[in-house]
Amino acid sequence: MTQKIICPGFEFSGVAAGLKKNGGKDLGLIYSEVVSRVAGIFTTNHVKAAPVLLDMERINAGICKAVIVNSGNANCCTGEQGMTHALAMTRYVADKLNIVEAMVLAASTGVIGVPMPIEKIEAASTDLINNLMHEGIEDFAGAIMTTDTIPKIVSRQGTINDKPFTVTGVAKGAGMICPNMATMLCFICTDADAEAPVLKESLMAGVDKSFNRITIDGDTSTNDTVLLMANGVSGAKIVGAAEKEAFQAVLDEVMLSLAKMVVKDGEGATKLVEIIVKGAVSDKDARTIARTIANSSLVKTALFGQDANWGRVLAAAGRSGVPIEPNRIDLYFNDVLMVKKGTTCGQAAEAEATKILKMPEFSITIDLHIGKAGFSVFTCDFSIDYVKINADYRS
Amino acid sequence: MTQKIICPGFEFSGVAAGLKKNGGKDLGLIYSEVVSRVAGIFTTNHVKAAPVLLDMERINAGICKAVIVNSGNANCCTGEQGMTHALAMTRYVADKLNIVEAMVLAASTGVIGVPMPIEKIEAASTDLINNLMHEGIEDFAGAIMTTDTIPKIVSRQGTINDKPFTVTGVAKGAGMICPNMATMLCFICTDADAEAPVLKESLMAGVDKSFNRITIDGDTSTNDTVLLMANGVSGAKIVGAAEKEAFQAVLDEVMLSLAKMVVKDGEGATKLVEIIVKGAVSDKDARTIARTIANSSLVKTALFGQDANWGRVLAAAGRSGVPIEPNRIDLYFNDVLMVKKGTTCGQAAEAEATKILKMPEFSITIDLHIGKAGFSVFTCDFSIDYVKINADYRS
Repeated sequence: MTQKIICPGFEFSGVAAGLKKNGGKDLGLIYSEVVSRVAGIFTTNHVKAAPVLLDMERINAGICKAVIVNSGNANCCTGEQGMTHALAMTRYVADKLNIVEAMVLAASTGVIGVPMPIEKIEAASTDLINNLMHEGIEDFAGAIMTTDTIPKIVSRQGTINDKPFTVTGVAKGAGMICPNMATMLCFICTDADAEAPVLKESLMAGVDKSFNRITIDGDTSTNDTVLLMANGVSGAKIVGAAEKEAFQAVLDEVMLSLAKMVVKDGEGATKLVEIIVKGAVSDKDARTIARTIANSSLVKTALFGQDANWGRVLAAAGRSGVPIEPNRIDLYFNDVLMVKKGTTCGQAAEAEATKILKMPEFSITIDLHIGKAGFSVFTCDFSIDYVKINADYRS
Repeated sequence: MTQKIICPGFEFSGVAAGLKKNGGKDLGLIYSEVVSRVAGIFTTNHVKAAPVLLDMERINAGICKAVIVNSGNANCCTGEQGMTHALAMTRYVADKLNIVEAMVLAASTGVIGVPMPIEKIEAASTDLINNLMHEGIEDFAGAIMTTDTIPKIVSRQGTINDKPFTVTGVAKGAGMICPNMATMLCFICTDADAEAPVLKESLMAGVDKSFNRITIDGDTSTNDTVLLMANGVSGAKIVGAAEKEAFQAVLDEVMLSLAKMVVKDGEGATKLVEIIVKGAVSDKDARTIARTIANSSLVKTALFGQDANWGRVLAAAGRSGVPIEPNRIDLYFNDVLMVKKGTTCGQAAEAEATKILKMPEFSITIDLHIGKAGFSVFTCDFSIDYVKINADYRS
């Protein structure tokens, strides 16, 4: 029997409230036995779901005790009633846990524009709390999934001044995955001890290296939420630069692992591809080019077709708006040089590249040779199943 | 028998040179019996095909006599040899027509990065010239098609100072269709009489109202070329404002008709949808929002699924970067009000909208209610066939 993943001082649960048509788990809860410090990052979309607006307000206090999350309904574009329902979700939990409402955050994911069947959440809330347990994270991970095919949980340990600490993260992704931010929902729990501003700083640094470097379909959700809760029960205090660095390393690993799991499990995805841009004039230019390539439908369908169609990669780079010099560009699939100074390296290179395209994970590197800056993003292919999943999503 | 489309003073041909694997016509020629004035607009992609670079140079003279066009190979990312081949294409034609090389323009469309099999073009060039005829435009239209399923030809008449004139356009599109510019290749011939700067002005105005208002997959080609040739043989002189207006009206109709044909025949497309943004603070804002919606994979797959998933439309508007107020937005499918002040109008409206989604052509209107500016674009749905076509394109 494999060991269950836990994060000391946190309890989790997931139940079926009847929001998902398939009867699966669709309501989850994270509960911190002591008051947690908390930091969050939310969607940049101007259309924000009610729970996002609620969390953005409540998170200013820097503390919380619980997070309630549902799938099956985004509670977005639901008018004033939407906020009433988001508040109600947190009240059900607060009342039954005997804590103040403001200590409960909320998140939702699912269809936009459909009123939340709030009575189902109320009805399920007793079970939700009764099922809380230290080993409950798999139930929680299942409850927040929508078109995800696998639950996404990553846990890592580190030490600060000889005190061991744990960082455990759970995420859901699949569709509408594009910077900023990439994941729809991600909850990270740690028993390390840090003030809210330190958590915020660490979280932002972590997001930049993970969720802001992935894309599935170029759409940005109305509900994106990443929360980092730290309950401090390990006694591993994050104060100085050395402690911050030690914590960041573990946090980064958890977040990047989750981000890659999200892309790999992108709707219909069959491949995880890193797009690496080198030799750019600035980091910003490199990022723009990398993201344009990573979001190109023509590039992504070629990846699905296992076609080393490097011309589409160059064409995408060329339309990004960043000035480039096509005749200087080198392009690699993994370490196979396919294009030298903007021109094909011939049949042998193409044959090698075609082998690489059949692999489930590989990289495409574009060296612009006009500067020294770089950036990389993770993307997936664009498959027939992506269209099937998204054409039928509401039905 | 239907009357053949002609444009006085222009001859056309199209032959099979062996560039297309299926043996279809792949080499076309337009020949003007007298020297034509010419204006052109070319791709904004920083990666430009050799024939584009050649035309951008030659068009400065403002005159030409012929245009040679091939499909099956884009002659892009082909190094110095690419320009040698583009020059050769025009030389074969110039030599045999006994005109100066600089009076011949060139265009190519097809796979990027593969050396042009120039000997095939040379071998076919005699046939190409021998087949020139006034009624040859259908052969030409067929020869420039790639994944297009139908040839795209539109011809309209007008009068200037009682003198009738003709504007005849032919286009190919299908993939990599995104502003700016939308079409890959479009050639417009007219027997009206105008100087090159007047043609350029008219062409730019026409493109803004047509090809820059369509999108298929958000990718911009390396080969986009729109040429307008005027041989003046009708004697309809375009000098003053009234004549310009009369000419523009006919040109606009030809270009918008062609642009809509291109979207309707987008790779795998089953629907032509106009995205209308109203009530924006500026035209630029309206354009940004309209294009973000029109390029959203999630919106386009919902259109394919005939799903009135208006939440995705609002989410796309929200992530465009333009500040909006979700609680003010009204959304219509055709004239059915589906969303009022950011919230659903309920089951009856949804049922009506679902009927509209089954139609082959309809509009989606978003009224932001924060200003008076507007913009509209034409898009198509994103189908399983789009992925199939683009996954297999080179094989």
